[in-house]
Amino acid sequence: MVPHLITALTGPINELEQRILESMPAIERWFRLEWMEHTPPFYSSVDLRNAGFKLAPVDTNLFPGGFNNLTPAMLPLAVQAAMAAIEKICPEAKNLLLVPENRARTNSFYLSNIATLVRVFSQAGLNVRLGTLDETIAVPTQVDLPDGTHLTLEPLLRNRGRLGLKDFDPCTILVNNDLSAGVPRVLEHLHEQYLLPPLHAGWTLRRKHQHFRAYEEVAKKFSKLMGMDPWLINPGFAHLDGLDLTDGSSMDALQTQADAMLTKVRRKYKEYGIQEKPFVAVKPDAGTGGKSIVMVRDAKDLPEKIAALGKDAQAALSEVIIQEGVPTYERVHDAMAEPVVYMMDRYVVGGFYRVHADRGSDESLKAPGSSFVPLAFAESSQLPRFGEKPGVSAPNRFYMYGVIARLAMLAASYELEATDPDAEVYE
Amino acid sequence: MVPHLITALTGPINELEQRILESMPAIERWFRLEWMEHTPPFYSSVDLRNAGFKLAPVDTNLFPGGFNNLTPAMLPLAVQAAMAAIEKICPEAKNLLLVPENRARTNSFYLSNIATLVRVFSQAGLNVRLGTLDETIAVPTQVDLPDGTHLTLEPLLRNRGRLGLKDFDPCTILVNNDLSAGVPRVLEHLHEQYLLPPLHAGWTLRRKHQHFRAYEEVAKKFSKLMGMDPWLINPGFAHLDGLDLTDGSSMDALQTQADAMLTKVRRKYKEYGIQEKPFVAVKPDAGTGGKSIVMVRDAKDLPEKIAALGKDAQAALSEVIIQEGVPTYERVHDAMAEPVVYMMDRYVVGGFYRVHADRGSDESLKAPGSSFVPLAFAESSQLPRFGEKPGVSAPNRFYMYGVIARLAMLAASYELEATDPDAEVYE
Repeated sequence: MVPHLITALTGPINELEQRILESMPAIERWFRLEWMEHTPPFYSSVDLRNAGFKLAPVDTNLFPGGFNNLTPAMLPLAVQAAMAAIEKICPEAKNLLLVPENRARTNSFYLSNIATLVRVFSQAGLNVRLGTLDETIAVPTQVDLPDGTHLTLEPLLRNRGRLGLKDFDPCTILVNNDLSAGVPRVLEHLHEQYLLPPLHAGWTLRRKHQHFRAYEEVAKKFSKLMGMDPWLINPGFAHLDGLDLTDGSSMDALQTQADAMLTKVRRKYKEYGIQEKPFVAVKPDAGTGGKSIVMVRDAKDLPEKIAALGKDAQAALSEVIIQEGVPTYERVHDAMAEPVVYMMDRYVVGGFYRVHADRGSDESLKAPGSSFVPLAFAESSQLPRFGEKPGVSAPNRFYMYGVIARLAMLAASYELEATDPDAEVYE
Repeated sequence: MVPHLITALTGPINELEQRILESMPAIERWFRLEWMEHTPPFYSSVDLRNAGFKLAPVDTNLFPGGFNNLTPAMLPLAVQAAMAAIEKICPEAKNLLLVPENRARTNSFYLSNIATLVRVFSQAGLNVRLGTLDETIAVPTQVDLPDGTHLTLEPLLRNRGRLGLKDFDPCTILVNNDLSAGVPRVLEHLHEQYLLPPLHAGWTLRRKHQHFRAYEEVAKKFSKLMGMDPWLINPGFAHLDGLDLTDGSSMDALQTQADAMLTKVRRKYKEYGIQEKPFVAVKPDAGTGGKSIVMVRDAKDLPEKIAALGKDAQAALSEVIIQEGVPTYERVHDAMAEPVVYMMDRYVVGGFYRVHADRGSDESLKAPGSSFVPLAFAESSQLPRFGEKPGVSAPNRFYMYGVIARLAMLAASYELEATDPDAEVYE
């Protein structure tokens, strides 16, 4: 079931794994106390990178696709977590309206993700129907899944205060659309229904630097609990906006920041005796797209690499984060592998490896050609085993992944509180 | 993974399975609403019997042993459910005191159950230690498990208001001892700590007829939701106390009740065209012991069967329930099988088959010689599959078992409310 993992078996991450296992009850209690103060995102997925000497989240997705990549063995955990989530939000809920991305009509992988979510929420006790933002769909439209089943996409009906479908008035609206294209008017001002996640979790408003600022805070708190250096789990970052990279002064500013980040990382590598050449990633501050990501080991290479991007990709780099690169040294069958952890409410419900055979350890694996190896986090492997040597036990490794992914989820919770436009300010 | 099941593939239970699957979101919502009004027992296990024409709970255990019979794949569900339970009861909890049965010292099967519970609650974020009621244990005593690990039993320390161990002050005390031997004084008047389950859930105070009265109410409600005859899931029962079965008039009263029950069941069998000879079980109204259970197809046989019991077993029959017998027609490898469903908080976390090769379909399987086939309820099999013919899909069968077991758990919740000696009465 568990693919053969080749990971550096020595170094700080094994110590971290050991410490995390030993501290398990304290860690779980710490999370429990944090969740007394903060509301977990309804669902999320976190991409991790394990460098052997460092383990860090690189992306926290609040509109996770890919639930179809979880193995069937993981789904009962998702159903149970969904039950717990619904009970807290709207215990009397009968109907759930799920709003997928527009590609639901044409992309059968994405459609399988939606089918999995429909299944999970039906089994958690909700009537689930799909309302599409695609305005070309004016009547209920059946779309076929690869397994021979089908789903029906229905046009949304908005009246003054509520959103629904024909003969379907939901108490909760679950959005599985990252709103990169902007907030659709039909989703605005829905004060009578629960809209999950909130609109400011969409990429129209969300910014990566705000997430990583929150993650830094969470990582520091957690590291204090564990008595360890937060750098081991926290990727450094800087943030720049108002850039016009066709302009020399913007490029200068970016190179200066990138160079400063590389210097910081080099110092840390030296401190830990890491024989690697650091790199940094320059990414748009909003959005999930992998096309505009540039990775450099020397700030001097930035102008050339950015010039090589298409015009659209360059334009996306007006607001950027410059992030410490974390190489991934896990391999599945000789291919680079990046663990992805799925969560619903406060619970880890599964995970898988994103695998890409043609990519290097310092490249983004979110690209065409990547494949998925579902990893049974949710089987016995989610539960740590004591008494095994650090670094050799998949279950223990996965437990650690679940902890770090939950730190990123907690950071998303802090982030959404800090960026909530409707938050009441007490002064 | 799933043992080959031979069950009558026609008849009312397949219709019930079909209806339960079709109504899944409504059923889950119904449970959610019930749990808004009622508190689920902290943990429980329910023995079911599937006669093909009828499916019913025959025993609801509020101090479940046998968690070690759940497969490792099921444990993550238990951990998640434990997290949800703790969060509601005492979110700041750090320490959990688990009070096992006295046989923990000598019975390695039971000890493995305790080891599983320790593992589940540790992973849910608690420091778990074991406090024994066994007064011969005056110092921390290590007991060895078959897998080479060990547990430590410690003497309980009671001060005025609190129960704990040396240097261990728990917020919650979890009892895994059914208190058949009476309520120990150290467990009384613990008003500062959470004592789970409450003392009146122990067999000193608990009575089966109160449970089945509550189950009857639950079964009627549920059957109304489903538009079906409650008899399909509800075993009839009657209750007699103050019996002295060495006395002729007590025996007469018992025979009259048994005969009345047999007549009722016969009528129902006729209504459904069931070609079986009904039987009834006479059981002590308190306790779990299988030794005093007598099964008869004719009330005339009662005196002889009861006379054949030992003196102690006869004495246990001073308060009895006379329960409609539900035969079990499930087989695992030609042996009689009885599904047992485990729950924690409101969630089904697993189950297994209790199998006994030497017993008949109308006998109790809770006897020496029974073995266990862990059934992966918690794997994909816990989640129903649509579009499969009723009666042939293990996952669908298990979903139905989970529903009926949860009805019994809900009945236990009603029962504990009705029998709570500390309940405030509003008039």
